[in-house]
Amino acid sequence: MYNYLMDIHERRIKDLQESLKREKLDAVVVSRRLEQDFLTGYNMDGYTMLVSRHEAWAFLPKMLLDQFRSKVDFVTAVSPDNQLAAVAEKVKEAGLKKTVFEPETENYVRGKFWLGRGFAEKGGLTAGLRAVKRPEEAALIRKSCRIASAAFKIIKPRIKAGRTELSVSRELNDIMRGMGASGPSFDLIIAFGPNSALPHHTSSERRLKKNEAVLIDFGCVYNGYCSDITRTFFYGKPDPEFKKVYALVDAAQKAGLKTVRAGAKAAAVDKACRAVIADAGYGQYFIHGTGHGIGLEIHEAPWVNSKSKETLKAGMTATVEPGVYLYGKFGVRIEDSVLVTKTGCEILTK
Amino acid sequence: MYNYLMDIHERRIKDLQESLKREKLDAVVVSRRLEQDFLTGYNMDGYTMLVSRHEAWAFLPKMLLDQFRSKVDFVTAVSPDNQLAAVAEKVKEAGLKKTVFEPETENYVRGKFWLGRGFAEKGGLTAGLRAVKRPEEAALIRKSCRIASAAFKIIKPRIKAGRTELSVSRELNDIMRGMGASGPSFDLIIAFGPNSALPHHTSSERRLKKNEAVLIDFGCVYNGYCSDITRTFFYGKPDPEFKKVYALVDAAQKAGLKTVRAGAKAAAVDKACRAVIADAGYGQYFIHGTGHGIGLEIHEAPWVNSKSKETLKAGMTATVEPGVYLYGKFGVRIEDSVLVTKTGCEILTK
Repeated sequence: MYNYLMDIHERRIKDLQESLKREKLDAVVVSRRLEQDFLTGYNMDGYTMLVSRHEAWAFLPKMLLDQFRSKVDFVTAVSPDNQLAAVAEKVKEAGLKKTVFEPETENYVRGKFWLGRGFAEKGGLTAGLRAVKRPEEAALIRKSCRIASAAFKIIKPRIKAGRTELSVSRELNDIMRGMGASGPSFDLIIAFGPNSALPHHTSSERRLKKNEAVLIDFGCVYNGYCSDITRTFFYGKPDPEFKKVYALVDAAQKAGLKTVRAGAKAAAVDKACRAVIADAGYGQYFIHGTGHGIGLEIHEAPWVNSKSKETLKAGMTATVEPGVYLYGKFGVRIEDSVLVTKTGCEILTK
Repeated sequence: MYNYLMDIHERRIKDLQESLKREKLDAVVVSRRLEQDFLTGYNMDGYTMLVSRHEAWAFLPKMLLDQFRSKVDFVTAVSPDNQLAAVAEKVKEAGLKKTVFEPETENYVRGKFWLGRGFAEKGGLTAGLRAVKRPEEAALIRKSCRIASAAFKIIKPRIKAGRTELSVSRELNDIMRGMGASGPSFDLIIAFGPNSALPHHTSSERRLKKNEAVLIDFGCVYNGYCSDITRTFFYGKPDPEFKKVYALVDAAQKAGLKTVRAGAKAAAVDKACRAVIADAGYGQYFIHGTGHGIGLEIHEAPWVNSKSKETLKAGMTATVEPGVYLYGKFGVRIEDSVLVTKTGCEILTK
């Protein structure tokens, strides 16, 4: 709940209602906590929303009713005995013939229930609203990224031989919290030596030794918004292979960043990074997509990979993070979060 | 990943395979991170498991393959281009005619895909394994509860006029982390004055004043296992109404705890609590169920409410938490986590 955003939520519901009109739909069920929070500012498990072209309802357990009403005055709140049946009843009563649910955010049991009541599938309605950030959202993501970048400058000189990955993880979290973050945006990946070759390594009690790679992939949540950044460096005197791979990944990331602008295909960013790495003969060691959107979720649209059909728009925020992983030896990943602009991008993690 | 539990995971897969045999099924898809972690100890988003009577497979993105293999040697790991198609292909190739998925842990898009491939719905297989805790799991939950109880003793005298709910939340988290917790088991509910009448209040910058109710609902995660406890007290000189309601909720909770034992119906525990509160004329202010199971999730089976069909078994862990909420004034909830035994229960939060 961020009270200063309160009027923004009401506007988001109106945006969703505009989408319904555009798509010639009567109503949409919003089932997931994340989208509900986005539309109301009320962040709690266990309720269902229904949004029609002109109204919005919340169907809550009794225990949440007073709280919801005290925080959200632009949604009609009720607490029926049977939530799902009540939604279906409301749809019937209000004559909302073309009511849809979003398959990508629905669970199986509920989705099946909606289908049985004649609701149709329609993806991308709320995701569409969330992918392009309004300036006030971009500002929160920028701040979230600034905290992460500043924390890196503090933690880097403190990463020394003998420290465990988990101790660095804990300290980095404390630093970010001290700067205003509410917590980490995911389980921080602190990887020493050969662990850096595992893209999603789980931070452990492994201690850093002299002359090893250090890969740290981290971020925080600031007023609900996520940041994501990866830095790789060598602790000690880098060997020639590390230097070579680092320079390669760096060049790949720069090539990718150069292609980012409104109107570019997300797949083209992936292609640009991948080409640099493949041309150097390391293509088989770049074993993941190039990036993903960031926002209320750490992984969201747009998806920056070879299969992506998405076109970048000004206001989208995403990561560009190519990597090369030599199993048993070391890995290098360089990741920045960026804001897509008309002519290019703003790097948010500096 | 808790290495000392590693052999336990393999045993859990064998338990699941026994369930398949008992239910005359050939295989089950395990889709959700939580159940996958329970079965393998590998806790990561983005993969799918298939468990047949004699084998287990994991279908992973390329970037996770080396890591999975290095940690889990009792599951066959592959990284196909299309995970879902590969699962369906394996089912066909291995002749697993009666393959099921669990509707309660599946998302809509995947569930629909499985249905299209001829898999059937079958709930409760993994939940059945998880609801009754083995001694080593009970020990971790006991420790998690001990940390929460001990933290309450430290924080209580520090809750004073002028402090904000969020500052208490942060300090309580720090205390629990200092005692070995990896983090909170949910967003701690610290509620001062009238906020205590909102069962799921979101902790805020509200400051405590003299002569107000204080309700704190909290818990931690210890080696993956959750604890849950609520304490309510009056800061200052309690007025007669608070005293009366507190005594009532206390009596209700004691009545509920008395009914807990292996063989009792979960609904009977709810009924016992509810009767005490209803008899005193406060029935309409007890606006939630009496409790829920705890374990790897903060809310899991068994469900302790009036609609529950479950029978308690020795080794289950659950909460007993009646409450009375007077909107605009104050609320009282008293919650303990218990371990069900043959003859009664062990109160884990002392």
